[in-house]
Amino acid sequence: MIEILLVGDELLSGSTLDKNAGHVAGALYEAGLTVSRITMVGDEQEDIERALHVPLDTTRFVIVTGGLGPTEDDRTACAAASAFDRKLLVHPEALALMEARFRELQRAMNPANRKQAVLPEDSIIIPNPVGTACGFIVTSRQREFLFLPGVPEEVRAITKSFIVEHIKEKAGSKQIILNKTLKVFGIFESMIQEKLTGVLPPKRTVALGFYPQYPEISLKITARGTERSRVEQDMQQFQDVLYEHLGDYIYSENNERLEEVVGDVLTTRQATLAVAESCTGGLVSHHLTNVSGSSRYLERSFVVYSNESKAQHLEVPPDCIEQHGAVSEPVARHMAEGVRRVSRTTFGLAVTGIAGPTGGSPNKPVGTVYIGVASKDRTEVKKHQFHGTRERIKMMSAHMALNSLRRFVLEG
Amino acid sequence: MIEILLVGDELLSGSTLDKNAGHVAGALYEAGLTVSRITMVGDEQEDIERALHVPLDTTRFVIVTGGLGPTEDDRTACAAASAFDRKLLVHPEALALMEARFRELQRAMNPANRKQAVLPEDSIIIPNPVGTACGFIVTSRQREFLFLPGVPEEVRAITKSFIVEHIKEKAGSKQIILNKTLKVFGIFESMIQEKLTGVLPPKRTVALGFYPQYPEISLKITARGTERSRVEQDMQQFQDVLYEHLGDYIYSENNERLEEVVGDVLTTRQATLAVAESCTGGLVSHHLTNVSGSSRYLERSFVVYSNESKAQHLEVPPDCIEQHGAVSEPVARHMAEGVRRVSRTTFGLAVTGIAGPTGGSPNKPVGTVYIGVASKDRTEVKKHQFHGTRERIKMMSAHMALNSLRRFVLEG
Repeated sequence: MIEILLVGDELLSGSTLDKNAGHVAGALYEAGLTVSRITMVGDEQEDIERALHVPLDTTRFVIVTGGLGPTEDDRTACAAASAFDRKLLVHPEALALMEARFRELQRAMNPANRKQAVLPEDSIIIPNPVGTACGFIVTSRQREFLFLPGVPEEVRAITKSFIVEHIKEKAGSKQIILNKTLKVFGIFESMIQEKLTGVLPPKRTVALGFYPQYPEISLKITARGTERSRVEQDMQQFQDVLYEHLGDYIYSENNERLEEVVGDVLTTRQATLAVAESCTGGLVSHHLTNVSGSSRYLERSFVVYSNESKAQHLEVPPDCIEQHGAVSEPVARHMAEGVRRVSRTTFGLAVTGIAGPTGGSPNKPVGTVYIGVASKDRTEVKKHQFHGTRERIKMMSAHMALNSLRRFVLEG
Repeated sequence: MIEILLVGDELLSGSTLDKNAGHVAGALYEAGLTVSRITMVGDEQEDIERALHVPLDTTRFVIVTGGLGPTEDDRTACAAASAFDRKLLVHPEALALMEARFRELQRAMNPANRKQAVLPEDSIIIPNPVGTACGFIVTSRQREFLFLPGVPEEVRAITKSFIVEHIKEKAGSKQIILNKTLKVFGIFESMIQEKLTGVLPPKRTVALGFYPQYPEISLKITARGTERSRVEQDMQQFQDVLYEHLGDYIYSENNERLEEVVGDVLTTRQATLAVAESCTGGLVSHHLTNVSGSSRYLERSFVVYSNESKAQHLEVPPDCIEQHGAVSEPVARHMAEGVRRVSRTTFGLAVTGIAGPTGGSPNKPVGTVYIGVASKDRTEVKKHQFHGTRERIKMMSAHMALNSLRRFVLEG
């Protein structure tokens, strides 16, 4: 029903990563409105015109961003006039709004800016709450083309202030839409699919989306309908099935990051944490400290790359390292217990492994990682075998460490 | 001549920000190849089919990413078979490659994975250097459709290993294209623009691209022509002008990451490093340890969130913290000197600051960060004021710390 068209050479040369399409699409999606295609074309008038001519049959709204600036290579208004066979005229309302905005900013308006008020005949103005140039709507053959400037900040503001409500109202949507995102870690996408094959209730009004963001996967349930109680019931039914089959891997149903969940779990117990990292090199601590307020539970961390530092700060016996190697079960155990003891925290978390690409051996290949968690009463160490680049092994190890801690704390 | 088609509901619902299109387009652009349209459609087979049917008249290559996964909602191969009227068959070469890859990873291949080897008849395989599933080419009416998996890491790898060279060769391009990327840190994009206005030689055969990747900016020079000596001369001329006006901010001309440059600088001097982080929470160490071989110079790091840990491990005098506050010039100095002394390294690097969003005060607002670097003979501490979210302040602080270290070491 809705399409998005982005105009700009910079998108096609890869010099700018577009954020507008995702933002507009996301805002519409949350309001229950579906975008069916996103197209990016260059600044040539011919390209823009052609793109304006080929909406899908079902499209009723086309949101166009970019090419409305003051410079010569901004040709969207021209292309629109030509595509819809309209005259280009100074739009008095647009001009008045621009002049007022320039006065407000105490900036002089130059002739190049005046061009931004020259629009296809019969355009309807879309006010711009944050920039100097207006957007505008041209209606042609039952379709509305909504033209916006390309500046991301302005696109965001206009989407919020105008686009979503306007389309919702025009589309006469009475649908109730509920979204819920379950976050999953520790299982491959293909294994999730296998586990869910044949068990999900066949409902056309409920959709399940997979959104992998390595190494996490988000499962988004979207339920829609006209009767709230029914939509809620559908949502609950889907969620129950997912918990039944994937419960062990679900760590959040509020779209939180793993480190936020860990933070909540520690805060609830008024617990504190100290971390000893080898192969993750600070990444576990970086994740933990991305959460505002993490200083309440994270007491300190050590990146103990050298064997000497493992002994000096974490009291890992040097002969244990010599006997078993720095990447081993006993060393991970000593690190977790040592970091907890030295830091006098409730929990100690330790990671030691081989991130690669060098440093592996037949017995301990690249990706061998030991993760240890210790409390006053018990210590748990697990061996993992990860794969991929150095960066991936670090990411996977850091996530697994956070998840191991979460489970350890929950198991009490 | 080239189009890109992206498949995935997650793009249309705004839940994933696409990076593939920009990456592929950028790589092609650098090779002198032009992308004329980028289209994104959903996972429905019908949508994909329709998109495969409507390339522009001039299009000779369509690069399609996404929808090749093992799950049921991956329907690109099916759509391709239907759009081009081909049978879907198990492709023996694709299957053999997948089986070999799974053996290599010591993972079991399940039936869902087998589906990834079922391709339109007469497809030509595109090897995937980093993932389990192959890409493939279908030729129809003089046009090549090149299908790739949607995982960004895999798209990058295949673009580099196959796509660019393949299209360049098929398109019979005789142009000589040279690229050079200067990496810049510590200056805003708008300031770069200002410094360069009117100073660059007006050459149509040389293009300068800005690629901001917060907090770094890449300046990419692309020079093209048919005569190598002329192209090299143009490149050199541009580079000289950039060094003249931005030399202080350029830290690499080999497209290295800042932490790689730091690693080189330390390795050359056979120097070692210890790090003490407060507000960056492990991010400096994470960056440093992303470089393979960093264990040669990074001895250890501390994330000293608590005042007690600053005193206990870095020998920061408690009364210094009490008198000046943990975020202060004297504490940064003590941290840098202390971490170096305790770890017996050539250099000590320390960061202490307020990452926010809470913890600021009128005297020390959020974003106040002190960075200290110490050697045996001297210590340098600088105060910085950064802005933005917690994450941005952490990123900016970590980069500034690495850059301060780099300059300190180079100054000798």
